[in-house]
Amino acid sequence: MLEVGGVQFGSRLFTGTGKFSSSELMEEALVASESELVTVALKRVDAHSQDDDILKHLKHPRIKLLPNTSGVRDAKEAVFAAQLAREALETDLLKLEIHPDPKYLMPDPIETLKATEELAKLGFKVFPYIHADPVLCKRLEDVGTAAVMPLGAPIGSNKGLATRDFLEIIIEQSSVPVIVDAGIGAPSHAAEAMEMGADAVLVNTAIAVSDNPVKMAEAFKLAVQAGRMAYEARLAARSQNAIASSPLTSFLD
Amino acid sequence: MLEVGGVQFGSRLFTGTGKFSSSELMEEALVASESELVTVALKRVDAHSQDDDILKHLKHPRIKLLPNTSGVRDAKEAVFAAQLAREALETDLLKLEIHPDPKYLMPDPIETLKATEELAKLGFKVFPYIHADPVLCKRLEDVGTAAVMPLGAPIGSNKGLATRDFLEIIIEQSSVPVIVDAGIGAPSHAAEAMEMGADAVLVNTAIAVSDNPVKMAEAFKLAVQAGRMAYEARLAARSQNAIASSPLTSFLD
Amino acid sequence: MLEVGGVQFGSRLFTGTGKFSSSELMEEALVASESELVTVALKRVDAHSQDDDILKHLKHPRIKLLPNTSGVRDAKEAVFAAQLAREALETDLLKLEIHPDPKYLMPDPIETLKATEELAKLGFKVFPYIHADPVLCKRLEDVGTAAVMPLGAPIGSNKGLATRDFLEIIIEQSSVPVIVDAGIGAPSHAAEAMEMGADAVLVNTAIAVSDNPVKMAEAFKLAVQAGRMAYEARLAARSQNAIASSPLTSFLD
Amino acid sequence: MLEVGGVQFGSRLFTGTGKFSSSELMEEALVASESELVTVALKRVDAHSQDDDILKHLKHPRIKLLPNTSGVRDAKEAVFAAQLAREALETDLLKLEIHPDPKYLMPDPIETLKATEELAKLGFKVFPYIHADPVLCKRLEDVGTAAVMPLGAPIGSNKGLATRDFLEIIIEQSSVPVIVDAGIGAPSHAAEAMEMGADAVLVNTAIAVSDNPVKMAEAFKLAVQAGRMAYEARLAARSQNAIASSPLTSFLD
Repeated sequence: MLEVGGVQFGSRLFTGTGKFSSSELMEEALVASESELVTVALKRVDAHSQDDDILKHLKHPRIKLLPNTSGVRDAKEAVFAAQLAREALETDLLKLEIHPDPKYLMPDPIETLKATEELAKLGFKVFPYIHADPVLCKRLEDVGTAAVMPLGAPIGSNKGLATRDFLEIIIEQSSVPVIVDAGIGAPSHAAEAMEMGADAVLVNTAIAVSDNPVKMAEAFKLAVQAGRMAYEARLAARSQNAIASSPLTSFLD
Repeated sequence: MLEVGGVQFGSRLFTGTGKFSSSELMEEALVASESELVTVALKRVDAHSQDDDILKHLKHPRIKLLPNTSGVRDAKEAVFAAQLAREALETDLLKLEIHPDPKYLMPDPIETLKATEELAKLGFKVFPYIHADPVLCKRLEDVGTAAVMPLGAPIGSNKGLATRDFLEIIIEQSSVPVIVDAGIGAPSHAAEAMEMGADAVLVNTAIAVSDNPVKMAEAFKLAVQAGRMAYEARLAARSQNAIASSPLTSFLD
Repeated sequence: MLEVGGVQFGSRLFTGTGKFSSSELMEEALVASESELVTVALKRVDAHSQDDDILKHLKHPRIKLLPNTSGVRDAKEAVFAAQLAREALETDLLKLEIHPDPKYLMPDPIETLKATEELAKLGFKVFPYIHADPVLCKRLEDVGTAAVMPLGAPIGSNKGLATRDFLEIIIEQSSVPVIVDAGIGAPSHAAEAMEMGADAVLVNTAIAVSDNPVKMAEAFKLAVQAGRMAYEARLAARSQNAIASSPLTSFLD
Repeated sequence: MLEVGGVQFGSRLFTGTGKFSSSELMEEALVASESELVTVALKRVDAHSQDDDILKHLKHPRIKLLPNTSGVRDAKEAVFAAQLAREALETDLLKLEIHPDPKYLMPDPIETLKATEELAKLGFKVFPYIHADPVLCKRLEDVGTAAVMPLGAPIGSNKGLATRDFLEIIIEQSSVPVIVDAGIGAPSHAAEAMEMGADAVLVNTAIAVSDNPVKMAEAFKLAVQAGRMAYEARLAARSQNAIASSPLTSFLD
């Protein structure tokens, strides 16, 4: 069973709340996904309002919230936002996102490391969204991160595991859970990440903007399970030559 | 529901019997896969023997046999083998494999077309194993093939969909079911083929040579379901730029 | 030095005449490319006219013409077209193109083999445009083809070597020159084909539709030379781990 | 003409001195490459010795040295090494390499940024070797880097542009020269980097360990020229459908 930040998860599919056409559809899709960790932008929730729409639709016994700091520009803003999130949502879990560039939303390695260090000292379980940079991952471990969330491809690009070669190194070297975030645009991408040995994946856009988010959520659920099982059962090696699955002796001998 | 050659299939995962370390393990894996169509090399079965090992392990109400002609060198041998297979196994279904080259097992387009034409006239439901050649697929349709089975990559190479660009054309143009055969080495590959709109996949080596064929069979079952659901729910388009899944307005405004 | 169909070529870059914005620009680009074999659609030339525009611009001592049968639908039309071409252009060289599908222009393996056999008997030096099908290549050799021209990707798609895995097999097995045709959209693609051991490449669209066809022609010339030299000097193997090019002993020891 | 750190370069191929089987072969290859900037590990040179082997072979009017800090573990060691290098080799140019991990030699983003800032203040023209991280590139600009040197793939892996998607973003956003370093294992890789708009590439292993380093050096020289020319002439767009380069009207109309 997966454990991150002291919390156990039965599902290795983490999800998000952005871009759904309605909160009702979001809720239905997240339930279908069987995801137990759902990230939500702090800006979108108002915990003090009885009528808060998104939060209302996320009140399920199995679902834990993972507030994210999307929109902050540096470590200082991130720490402030994290504290608001903890108070509002009563959780130490935090998805740290610091991406100053509004076009590609690539994360800032320097500010992310700095904020992770501060937040870990403040007792947060930090899930930092980062580029697939193996050395940065080790440094985040050194300052007490709960997990690392390297990107597969730019957020929302749906390109899959463009960082494949670096994810392999990260997975090999990491002593904290590796959660592939961003870029996963199809169940096959999620399965591939799991086959490589990622501990979990986070999927949002590909589910939310599908023609049928509920069905797509279920597809991702199955793909993540499939990829994990394949990892556990060990995939066969790739081979340069063909290897017959049927006997090669000439049929009519 | 998938229909090929007049037969309906609840599962879109077709499997094979080669390379398993024992017939018992094969049986257990094929049951776990929930596959309803299992290909078997004619050379390996002896229908008249009470003790025939492989056949005994394939007697399940849900499993149909798909004899294959692996080992034949040309159309003439293929037709002869097909007739033996029909008599022995009492089925019109036939996986046609003509691959003269013993190293890469690449199929022969000329002999395959010739044999398909003859076999279709003889009432066979032909599943020809072919290169991912869009024009050959159309010509096979013209002579009455029941399906086309383009390869993803050389047999046993586990490389996945190396023929991706051509499979897309084949799927777009085909009026018979498209079953991706050969090269599928991981559940993610199977999911990708299904996401593209393939009607089914055939997997053998990747299941049989895994450390845990039963678990791997189940992984493929889930991946094929996931890929099909994603196809039906329509995947989101790939995008060049990042698209935020969380709101981009600066957090602390 | 490359020899195909009994003719020696100093350049391994073959070119075409389609899609240039003017015949003058075409001539300038082809001269810059230093190509010695230029394919031309028979439909576009009128050898009997004094004023024929394209032919006039191809009269260079170094340039040989390679008439192609683009537009024919089957072997019979191809043989007829070839005979017209031989008479009109006084050459036995022939690029055989039979692609019935108007959308993707994928070649027909059956009609191409049939036409190659007939044309070889009639004394033609046949350069058949084909899918990257290793078995078809061997069968074309058997009937006397002068070369094989497997495609890298659909004509005009500029996608590069989508058929990489199959080109490798073809190059390994072929006893006639292998000329990669179609899909080459950048000098890097041409270089890659040559590095793999292709004997030559044919490039048309990528030169003709560039903003600066003359400069692009020269770029392809250099890239083909580079790729050939790298093939001759043998590339280093790919490695999974990093290997330092500088000494790893800690600097300050 | 390329200008980096106030120096103009006629060649966009930068090279290195590691792994050659002899200093004579190194010299011959570097001359053949026409490279004007050659990186050398400080540990390998002893400027005070009359007999120093490597330096003796690099004394060419066209060649400038680019000392690198390979082997240092953090910013402090890097600054110290840089000062030694400046004194020994009488150049402000410095290739900054800080890679604590001995297996994959991935660079450290934090220490690299810190060292770049200090070194820029000390008047160095810094060429930092980094992961292909777009935000890190912008931050390096902010502290006065002369260029950025994102990696294509792990050093010595010869895998080519595994970081393609991120190099594109870096090239689009950078206001300092972008030099692709590490991973370039074939002339086609170098050409591709240049086609994308990289300002230069640095190649060492692929030349040094080839069967014929002199010929391979020349191949890279041509490939870099080809890629640059293609960039200037603008490549055609990739297309999903085939586009005929010959007229499609049926031949025999």
